[in-house]
Amino acid sequence: MSAADEASASVQARVGRRGLILILSSPSGAGKTSLTRALREEKELGLEVSVSVTTRAKRPSEIAGRDYTFISVDDFMALRDHDDLLEWAEVHGNFYGTPRRPVERALAAGTDMIFDIDYQGTRQVRASMGDDVVTVFILPPSMAELKHRLERRAEDTRETIDKRLGNARVEIERWSEYDYVVVNEDLGASFAGLKAILSAERLKRERQVGLPAFVGELLAESVV
Amino acid sequence: MSAADEASASVQARVGRRGLILILSSPSGAGKTSLTRALREEKELGLEVSVSVTTRAKRPSEIAGRDYTFISVDDFMALRDHDDLLEWAEVHGNFYGTPRRPVERALAAGTDMIFDIDYQGTRQVRASMGDDVVTVFILPPSMAELKHRLERRAEDTRETIDKRLGNARVEIERWSEYDYVVVNEDLGASFAGLKAILSAERLKRERQVGLPAFVGELLAESVV
Repeated sequence: MSAADEASASVQARVGRRGLILILSSPSGAGKTSLTRALREEKELGLEVSVSVTTRAKRPSEIAGRDYTFISVDDFMALRDHDDLLEWAEVHGNFYGTPRRPVERALAAGTDMIFDIDYQGTRQVRASMGDDVVTVFILPPSMAELKHRLERRAEDTRETIDKRLGNARVEIERWSEYDYVVVNEDLGASFAGLKAILSAERLKRERQVGLPAFVGELLAESVV
Repeated sequence: MSAADEASASVQARVGRRGLILILSSPSGAGKTSLTRALREEKELGLEVSVSVTTRAKRPSEIAGRDYTFISVDDFMALRDHDDLLEWAEVHGNFYGTPRRPVERALAAGTDMIFDIDYQGTRQVRASMGDDVVTVFILPPSMAELKHRLERRAEDTRETIDKRLGNARVEIERWSEYDYVVVNEDLGASFAGLKAILSAERLKRERQVGLPAFVGELLAESVV
């Protein structure tokens, strides 16, 4: 546990805090997935992920309720129409969405969540959740480096890589809608930057919803 | 140099950044002075302090231009009336103020400054400098601990300590005007929290004034 995390133990931790939603967006290959995984795996950060709902069929490798909650199109539309999705999208004819209630419960309990979504999802979550949302855009240090990373992961064909590079330009143009911007040249340094953002955001006055009560007790305390 | 600081070296550092003004306020004894000193002494943070102007006489231990710039009442009034002071106050018949120009120059050069001022000065600097200002209120964990710290530093008489405790209550009531609130139970943990706030604020999109140019180059970069 770092000293910054220890700050949020003890008295500061007894001050009730509302959770936040940390959103990382980036073009494919800029490091969003690696950074999200690293943040999730650092257990002491206590970041939770939401399980999305989807209308597509379960793949053999997936576990229902862990990877996705698999639901019918009718159920999806009912959720959407009752404003029970924080964000949703249609991809290749299938629907995907983030259920609102588990997120609301987590935030009310002081638990922070991490979302790895694109700018369209980010806009929707921001519209629903306002100041609970902290958005970070991850930029590659150069397009050459982005291409190199896409090639190195060796998942994609030449055509797919070219398509991803084209899409990357469209996504990069959305950088100006985000609260923070991290140029991911070195994964360790970017990770440290994200942890600093999380530590700082937890110390924001308006998230520490127990402060009025804490200060009230402080002012009522008689010292002779 | 921590990994978070390394993040701001390299490419991220080549993205031009506007400096910020970190303001710490707290009641006497809550740790503002120790924390400000610790942040200033951590040279790699690169925090600069402003030299205030004052109309009071120089004390033998003070060095003009380092501790204060000593000026006449007429010169002080001229500065004030030309809006050349970011904040000013009268204390026991003497005037004190923070000259605007050195601060403007530092911020334009990407240098961050740290101010250790009260809520009245904070309000004035905020009114002048807007989003360049990052404000942190330091709370004591309890009034008993605040009293204990005032007694332990053994600088003050019983009457002065009682007066400081009374003033502390007035100052604590201003906590709700600040961006961040740190409950200073453990100096090391609070110090780490302040460093996280500084690292995070440096990654804020709007402070990285070179980002439009950086992204422009990125999008113009051809990768074959």
